[in-house]
Amino acid sequence: MKKTLKFRNKTTLLAIFAIIIVVMVVFLPDFSFAQDPTGAKTGTINDVAAATSGQPTLTEVGEQAGHNKIAINIMWTLIAGFLVMFMQAGFAMVETGFTQKKNVAHTMTMNFLIYAIGMIGFWICGFAIMFGGGFNLGSLGGSAGVIPSEYVVHLFGHDFGIWGKAGFFLSSKYYDVGIYTLFLFQMVFMDTTATIPTGSMAERWTLKSFIIYGFFISMIVYPLYGNWVWGGGWLSQLGANFGFGHGHVDFAGSSVVHMVGGVAALAGAIVIGPRYGKFGKNGEVKTIPGHNIPMAMVGTFILAFGWFGFNAGSTLAGSDLRIGVIATNTMLAGGAGALAALFYMYIKGQKADPGMIANGMLAGLVAVTAPCAFITSLSAVIIGVVAGLLVIAAIYIMDHKLKIDDPVGAFAVHGVNGAWGVISLGLFADGTYGDGWNGVKGNVTGLFYGDSSQLVAQLIGTVTCIVFVFIVMYVFFKLLNKIVPLRSKEIDEIEGLDIPETGVLGYVD
Amino acid sequence: MKKTLKFRNKTTLLAIFAIIIVVMVVFLPDFSFAQDPTGAKTGTINDVAAATSGQPTLTEVGEQAGHNKIAINIMWTLIAGFLVMFMQAGFAMVETGFTQKKNVAHTMTMNFLIYAIGMIGFWICGFAIMFGGGFNLGSLGGSAGVIPSEYVVHLFGHDFGIWGKAGFFLSSKYYDVGIYTLFLFQMVFMDTTATIPTGSMAERWTLKSFIIYGFFISMIVYPLYGNWVWGGGWLSQLGANFGFGHGHVDFAGSSVVHMVGGVAALAGAIVIGPRYGKFGKNGEVKTIPGHNIPMAMVGTFILAFGWFGFNAGSTLAGSDLRIGVIATNTMLAGGAGALAALFYMYIKGQKADPGMIANGMLAGLVAVTAPCAFITSLSAVIIGVVAGLLVIAAIYIMDHKLKIDDPVGAFAVHGVNGAWGVISLGLFADGTYGDGWNGVKGNVTGLFYGDSSQLVAQLIGTVTCIVFVFIVMYVFFKLLNKIVPLRSKEIDEIEGLDIPETGVLGYVD
Amino acid sequence: MKKTLKFRNKTTLLAIFAIIIVVMVVFLPDFSFAQDPTGAKTGTINDVAAATSGQPTLTEVGEQAGHNKIAINIMWTLIAGFLVMFMQAGFAMVETGFTQKKNVAHTMTMNFLIYAIGMIGFWICGFAIMFGGGFNLGSLGGSAGVIPSEYVVHLFGHDFGIWGKAGFFLSSKYYDVGIYTLFLFQMVFMDTTATIPTGSMAERWTLKSFIIYGFFISMIVYPLYGNWVWGGGWLSQLGANFGFGHGHVDFAGSSVVHMVGGVAALAGAIVIGPRYGKFGKNGEVKTIPGHNIPMAMVGTFILAFGWFGFNAGSTLAGSDLRIGVIATNTMLAGGAGALAALFYMYIKGQKADPGMIANGMLAGLVAVTAPCAFITSLSAVIIGVVAGLLVIAAIYIMDHKLKIDDPVGAFAVHGVNGAWGVISLGLFADGTYGDGWNGVKGNVTGLFYGDSSQLVAQLIGTVTCIVFVFIVMYVFFKLLNKIVPLRSKEIDEIEGLDIPETGVLGYVD
Repeated sequence: MKKTLKFRNKTTLLAIFAIIIVVMVVFLPDFSFAQDPTGAKTGTINDVAAATSGQPTLTEVGEQAGHNKIAINIMWTLIAGFLVMFMQAGFAMVETGFTQKKNVAHTMTMNFLIYAIGMIGFWICGFAIMFGGGFNLGSLGGSAGVIPSEYVVHLFGHDFGIWGKAGFFLSSKYYDVGIYTLFLFQMVFMDTTATIPTGSMAERWTLKSFIIYGFFISMIVYPLYGNWVWGGGWLSQLGANFGFGHGHVDFAGSSVVHMVGGVAALAGAIVIGPRYGKFGKNGEVKTIPGHNIPMAMVGTFILAFGWFGFNAGSTLAGSDLRIGVIATNTMLAGGAGALAALFYMYIKGQKADPGMIANGMLAGLVAVTAPCAFITSLSAVIIGVVAGLLVIAAIYIMDHKLKIDDPVGAFAVHGVNGAWGVISLGLFADGTYGDGWNGVKGNVTGLFYGDSSQLVAQLIGTVTCIVFVFIVMYVFFKLLNKIVPLRSKEIDEIEGLDIPETGVLGYVD
Repeated sequence: MKKTLKFRNKTTLLAIFAIIIVVMVVFLPDFSFAQDPTGAKTGTINDVAAATSGQPTLTEVGEQAGHNKIAINIMWTLIAGFLVMFMQAGFAMVETGFTQKKNVAHTMTMNFLIYAIGMIGFWICGFAIMFGGGFNLGSLGGSAGVIPSEYVVHLFGHDFGIWGKAGFFLSSKYYDVGIYTLFLFQMVFMDTTATIPTGSMAERWTLKSFIIYGFFISMIVYPLYGNWVWGGGWLSQLGANFGFGHGHVDFAGSSVVHMVGGVAALAGAIVIGPRYGKFGKNGEVKTIPGHNIPMAMVGTFILAFGWFGFNAGSTLAGSDLRIGVIATNTMLAGGAGALAALFYMYIKGQKADPGMIANGMLAGLVAVTAPCAFITSLSAVIIGVVAGLLVIAAIYIMDHKLKIDDPVGAFAVHGVNGAWGVISLGLFADGTYGDGWNGVKGNVTGLFYGDSSQLVAQLIGTVTCIVFVFIVMYVFFKLLNKIVPLRSKEIDEIEGLDIPETGVLGYVD
Repeated sequence: MKKTLKFRNKTTLLAIFAIIIVVMVVFLPDFSFAQDPTGAKTGTINDVAAATSGQPTLTEVGEQAGHNKIAINIMWTLIAGFLVMFMQAGFAMVETGFTQKKNVAHTMTMNFLIYAIGMIGFWICGFAIMFGGGFNLGSLGGSAGVIPSEYVVHLFGHDFGIWGKAGFFLSSKYYDVGIYTLFLFQMVFMDTTATIPTGSMAERWTLKSFIIYGFFISMIVYPLYGNWVWGGGWLSQLGANFGFGHGHVDFAGSSVVHMVGGVAALAGAIVIGPRYGKFGKNGEVKTIPGHNIPMAMVGTFILAFGWFGFNAGSTLAGSDLRIGVIATNTMLAGGAGALAALFYMYIKGQKADPGMIANGMLAGLVAVTAPCAFITSLSAVIIGVVAGLLVIAAIYIMDHKLKIDDPVGAFAVHGVNGAWGVISLGLFADGTYGDGWNGVKGNVTGLFYGDSSQLVAQLIGTVTCIVFVFIVMYVFFKLLNKIVPLRSKEIDEIEGLDIPETGVLGYVD
């Protein structure tokens, strides 16, 4: 019986193959009828809009060339935004992999929810606060947005933008292809910030207080600092107003995204306190190993992949060919950071800890995010090497000196190296790019290439970020803690948060 | 000895570093010789084809502008298609994560095979049946394809397309860059449909009957309904023939892809029957928890990532700037669906079940797939909220009322919300997009914006999909079951399908 | 108390919803003010660079059209490069999934490190050796690079390029958007090669010797063979010099990337020897099953996803519309390979082993990599079917005849099918594409379409690759083994390499 079945299977399969081959032969390509297999004849002057078959005019060709340019820029910005969105999966895997098995459903749920929460919060008012004060949509083809004077504060004899007021719910005149594109790209950046504290506060944070935090940072805190740097706000005007270089320059978010997230992560880790068992009675530090190295390493690869969109996409323009330099610098800084961490460990006689290697790569990526567009590949490598060493030092200091429990090193990676990133821009910017940035003539130039005033602007932005974000988030977490406790119950934390918080186990045997 | 080795390692490392630094200094960037680091001088009139160095004519510039436009569209369609292909990994992870550990190799193998089976089936005849009746390749630069009159049925005084007959094996004159591009994009859409029933029939389906199913749906069922909506068939002609709006409009496949897959999943789940132990003797419903929440959540992120290609790519044109609106609407509906599910559970006093949150996001994405190009962001959020609630209700009804075992909620996500998606288009389409769609003048407009006839076309398409697909697939599964049993042996199902079906264990300790 | 809390939660939630709805209504889209929701008015002649509002001249429009073309090409090359970079995650997952649980941190760490090592090595000198002898940057908008005559060897009355000498550290005049873009794309290709031996030498390779290997292959071996085929070297000149077709043609790297990696993997597997327990005392072969099938299958999907960038990106031009044909051929060959493996196993009465199905798909992808741009879809399917059968045969021969332990079948997949790929180009190239390739007029044409001399060039390239790479890598591994032992200690290998090599466990319960 079984034999028969097998035989029938074989015969049937062979018969099917025979039929397929016969049909294939019948339909074999007949090249005399081939359409346009190379594409050489595809896409002609007849594809110029409005030109149905005749000769289009110069105006019509010009319209098409201009439309093509904007299409190139919108495509580039969208695709880059998709890659950045995918980084949410990377963060989720890194944080879940580097924490304990008993909390995987909880850690994953936080990382998943922040994507949804952040996007709705940013849609409601975050985007409006950040960009509603004015944004030059040139590369995306639009022209909306002027700084409304009532939201500009007059201080020290100069006008400062503080927050925007237009674009809530993307409604009314913000129903525009360029603005929707900008929204998508900026939303996924904001969500990167918002997900960073889930790492430092992992394994002990209640979901309900986390959800409130999610709305708060996406609707208020991130948009405010973002407005100051990218929305035409006061930090971006330091150059035009006071002559500090081009104002605080942060190409793709070492400060706006990573330092904000990292400092918030620090404030949260302090308020929520260390996990039970992290520090012994005599202050000795205990290592709580991550439960799944492959998950964390693949997550790191996803982050490095998405980072190409993060940095090179921040031109908001595929027609700005500098994207080739940006992407390469991004890649090299990440690799240099990983190798710096590796060789440091080897020189110290330690083993090749994959967690530290991954953090080294992430540190390099965070650091190069601000300067990536303004530097040579050699500078990118140097910045990455420093970042890879900084992250190891910072993790050591957090653990052994400050006794702050940050399970995945979120502050060391994003906070410390975010600061190093904006400062390194003030050192290494080589004066070949950024003409007219923030309304200042000439290219962005760092200390090593002759402009010390740029470094001052970078330092002002760094100090502002640390002071503003830390105070606001520390107070917020303290207040929130009184209404909805941040910290899960001791018994839940010890036994694992999956069932108490999500009702399901992360892994079922 | 060990000491010595370490020392030698350190010395070697330092020596290597020293050499590298020396070499670096030698090769330090010499900016006087820098080529074009900003790209400002790169890409000039000399890059216009045929212009080697002289001044090109208006015709040559126009040719280049037209060619650029088509290149933009083909690039966009291909990249979007790549993202959709990647969704196969997302489906595989969601389905495997939400099912049991004992069947992981089997569930993965089904999800992997469907990609290969579907692409070959669609290449043999699926594509020809779906699009061989005529398709306007305009945005991809081609002009092939007219409805062959012998395949048009004359009924009620009107001509209806039923199926296509050209393009088998992509041979002969279908060897064309535009057509190959269209094939790739449509193939990955079809494969999304084909993989949906692997969820509803998981943990009990024999691979051999599954393989036959795979060829059947990719070669016959999907292409037929697809022809009616996207291939110029009768549902798309409801507007031109009978004045029902723009005919059945489904921008990116709420009905063509998701409802077809969801209804097939329902028919399959009914025919194959519930898993042993799912329903008790007295009809009580038992929860069979998924074995790996992180896998399922990361899979959901991958799906949300690929969905940007799914929806925004369905313009088949990067030069159609509406892509910015489409991508943003897609993102928002997914987020709104996830939050709706979350807050519903909290209001009901339940915990934040990650499975339901993920299904809420997927439901929002499925629902917005049809209307995404025709609505505002506010409508996208509303559609997503409704979808997030619908999926919870549908899962409850499937389990507790209908007693149909659908392990991952495939019908609730794709079937129910596929229907909601095409209907919501008939409600929320705001009359700003879709001029000339299916040969009808004016923009696509839903009931809330004044056109009730569009809603009728949407309902006709919905009912047709449910009736046609359910009957065909139910009969198919019943007949197939007589030749190659659908259901694995009881002992195999209880002990796990990995060894019986694939010969290997999914996890080895 | 708990009751109260719940009640308060509900009330709060409902209040929040009410507020949101009220605010929504206030901000409801006011279409009279809608900006440009369709994008029809976005991107006009005013977006032509230099045209601020007046009518641009023909020269200005031509400049924009030329710039757009280069932007299209740079975007395409970068995005494709990002996808190829992501394949590193795929390789890591496939290799880790198909090996044992006790070595996951070690296998992951190797796969992670190679990305960083390779990129720095290629940046230091690999890129310069490979492309510094001359490369036509046309599609990327540049014009740098001429073969320096001192590196051309005169033999047999002809000039041969052997290696390049310009572009170290991307410094000096190589600071250029086109060159940085080319670097990124070529770097990720090289890293694909470099990661292949981590599969064949998995579960027994010391990290320190692996790191040295990583620098060696990325700085020397890959760049040399790469120079001969893609950098204007002697294999590429076989056509112009001796009339062998268009010289050795390898569109996207069946030989340059995969065969080099596969042959290096073979040499490494021989030198390092089989894992303890792989072969019994009497030569019997023992199966050491992979520990995580889902990880390996998802990794395969990631590879298939990235392969679209690998092959279609190798035009280095989105404006070359052949990308549509290339991407589709790539997809079909992979699917055909998977199905060939599946049906072969079924015909032999075996079960559907997911490992073999995955290897079948990878084999098809490897094989089609060289010919993908020159063939019809039917040829792609045939090439894929042959590849799917070849890989099964090769794995059998490696295990049972040669007794070489290659844990993941790296040589069978990449080496054997890399060779089949370049040879199949010599058979199936259909003479519709490749005019002017390697300086030879006319399209690339294989034996079945009338040009037997192309096949000769393919065979010369294949033999050269095998002989050159095998000898160099065999000698290298032998020498390296004397300085830093390749093989981990027996006790470590038996107990697992995670702790001895990385200091952490891959999985912690």
